[in-house]
Amino acid sequence: MHTQAPHQIAPALPPLALNRRHLLAGSASALAAVGLSTWTQGAAAQAKALPAYASWKDVNSAIVHIATTIETKRGAFGTSVITPAEQLYIRNNLPAPDASIVADRDAWEIAIEGVSKPRKLSLRELKTLGLETVAMVLQCSGNGRGFFPSKPSGTPWTVGAAGCVVWSGVPVRVVAEALGGLESGMRFMTGTGGEKLPDGLDPKSIIVERSVPAAAMADALLAWEMNGAAIPLAHGGPLRLIVPGYTGINNIKYIKQLAFTAQETDAKIMSHGYRISPPGEKGDPNQPSVQEMTVKSWINSPSPDAGLLEKGRVQISGVAFGGLQPVKRVEVSVDGGKNWIDARFVGPDLGKYAWRQFVLETRLLAGQHMLASRATDVQGNVQPQQRLENAAGYNNTSWADHAVAVKVA
Amino acid sequence: MHTQAPHQIAPALPPLALNRRHLLAGSASALAAVGLSTWTQGAAAQAKALPAYASWKDVNSAIVHIATTIETKRGAFGTSVITPAEQLYIRNNLPAPDASIVADRDAWEIAIEGVSKPRKLSLRELKTLGLETVAMVLQCSGNGRGFFPSKPSGTPWTVGAAGCVVWSGVPVRVVAEALGGLESGMRFMTGTGGEKLPDGLDPKSIIVERSVPAAAMADALLAWEMNGAAIPLAHGGPLRLIVPGYTGINNIKYIKQLAFTAQETDAKIMSHGYRISPPGEKGDPNQPSVQEMTVKSWINSPSPDAGLLEKGRVQISGVAFGGLQPVKRVEVSVDGGKNWIDARFVGPDLGKYAWRQFVLETRLLAGQHMLASRATDVQGNVQPQQRLENAAGYNNTSWADHAVAVKVA
Repeated sequence: MHTQAPHQIAPALPPLALNRRHLLAGSASALAAVGLSTWTQGAAAQAKALPAYASWKDVNSAIVHIATTIETKRGAFGTSVITPAEQLYIRNNLPAPDASIVADRDAWEIAIEGVSKPRKLSLRELKTLGLETVAMVLQCSGNGRGFFPSKPSGTPWTVGAAGCVVWSGVPVRVVAEALGGLESGMRFMTGTGGEKLPDGLDPKSIIVERSVPAAAMADALLAWEMNGAAIPLAHGGPLRLIVPGYTGINNIKYIKQLAFTAQETDAKIMSHGYRISPPGEKGDPNQPSVQEMTVKSWINSPSPDAGLLEKGRVQISGVAFGGLQPVKRVEVSVDGGKNWIDARFVGPDLGKYAWRQFVLETRLLAGQHMLASRATDVQGNVQPQQRLENAAGYNNTSWADHAVAVKVA
Repeated sequence: MHTQAPHQIAPALPPLALNRRHLLAGSASALAAVGLSTWTQGAAAQAKALPAYASWKDVNSAIVHIATTIETKRGAFGTSVITPAEQLYIRNNLPAPDASIVADRDAWEIAIEGVSKPRKLSLRELKTLGLETVAMVLQCSGNGRGFFPSKPSGTPWTVGAAGCVVWSGVPVRVVAEALGGLESGMRFMTGTGGEKLPDGLDPKSIIVERSVPAAAMADALLAWEMNGAAIPLAHGGPLRLIVPGYTGINNIKYIKQLAFTAQETDAKIMSHGYRISPPGEKGDPNQPSVQEMTVKSWINSPSPDAGLLEKGRVQISGVAFGGLQPVKRVEVSVDGGKNWIDARFVGPDLGKYAWRQFVLETRLLAGQHMLASRATDVQGNVQPQQRLENAAGYNNTSWADHAVAVKVA
């Protein structure tokens, strides 16, 4: 069933009998009394302290898995499009470099290779070359891993390893043109992170170095600003490669080299890491790499940790994005996917790489409800019901996995 | 002279001789040696500490005038459209209420009056009624007062009593409809702030209560979220009236009553405050009220406190907005307004109430230059050269006042 959601149902409601939704039971014991004790897991995870390099984060919105993986709580996502820096997830493959690298940001240098006139450029020089801004979904490849019943190794993110962030910097294509253009045969854009590598290891076994198709340079930035401020160290400042539409790992932090290359890098994180491997198998270069994002949505409110809801009117809201192309439609179901109703988009459209907020206004009766959302991109690709099973738990876009069970009294 | 700005001039430049812009002299004495000692005033102002209620602000981007007026430094404005909460200016007419009002945000109540079925609504109830998001320029009526040679009383803001902020909440029109619609003859929408008033004074002499035309409700929100997070106490949380296109004072913080009224409120802040009075005269109800914003732009980079620049390529960037309608054009001059070149807009368009970033790529030779920007809105209104003189220093949109003098070596 597909019906258009009413944009306003307010006038039809009795004005003096507005319904309220609220948390009837706030303590773990009270939740246990209504059979919801497992819903307090999020609160338990929150208790872990923020690491020093991320001490400025909003601890109330964070699930600290370990020091280098911090998730945004589903119930903490706002509805005003932008994910503030204080709430944005962190997933760092290696510890962040020393804070001294952001003491004089403009002095940071990046080597540009695979162009006619390769050279190092300082951030100060990059800032003279051009300026562009892009809003985009930054999402860890493993976002949604926590929904895999196979419990793959790695952080069990649910929805919070993602955010919608605004970046400013110089377009990569402008930098390449300033240096005479690409050398012939360079099919990849390979970025290298500036993390300090542990002694005694083969650098290729641990360095953060990733290749994406050179065509991705069209919308890529070398960015020094995020959400209106200098990029925090925890998010890759002073300089980060931004490849809109590609999963987080491809957006290289502390970028120290950008090379146009004939082949993908042979760094292990590229050759064996972030591959879609069949369950039980290790990653290898013959398997698909985790790069472009595809259409996805999820509901943030009501969130799974909202507790017991009161019956009546409710605004079901969430986010939807298409990856490399805009999202055009979101449907919402309140019965686990049997019936779907078109939600409406609200708020400004920040461009094809950003997420849109959606909302469906409806009424919930007492009982249990399974709320789900399903997005469609402009090419007609529909968010799938089932996840693609894979060993490492990447790219989970399953609408069923992201559904929210709510209890209404 | 009007010419189209080149979108890229990079390929025409020698790739190994990129020009750099940087601060050649960082200390006050060094600046004095090149005749720029007055440029350190901003740094001196920055030294004032942040008040406790705003301790979470980024002190490096702030000019603390007094505890209730905090400005964003011109050089601190980012280029990625959004002004982060940490950098956003504060101008509070009265001290912020006690933080206890944000301990249980959903319990906050607002009285809705002048509708068929007047009643109080809790924030919890408002959240069930609707959801909309708007990006808008929030700007203090006195922004630019610091450029008035007459030195009006009040905070001498230059450009930093403004920001571009995203708000989420329920549309005022939805709330009004849910309560049966407006009573007849109600021409104004009057909001009342929830600040604690000092004892022993006539409340009308000090209360923050403002009226705007009822038609402004079309795009107005009762907002609980700013930039993706619950509205901070310092910015009017838990609930703020948002009237896009209207100066800051009309966006009532801690709103406790929203009344549709036949007349403007007789509160002093409305009847005598925020009026455009001839120089030397006090405000009174017969003078124009400070409400709708008009077309304006300014350059943020290079900023006046950037110090001595190095000659060569530079990206001149800033912000432009139209007030109640979109901005359609920005021109930049590097010779104090003798010649103008079209700048280009960059970054996402967040809607008609938001500002746009603009950038002009050019080269600066050694010497002194006066950089100016001039915006035009979609109705053809051009940002004026001269400010409208008025006693209190309101509504300064003069492009000449906002020009930036730079020295290039």
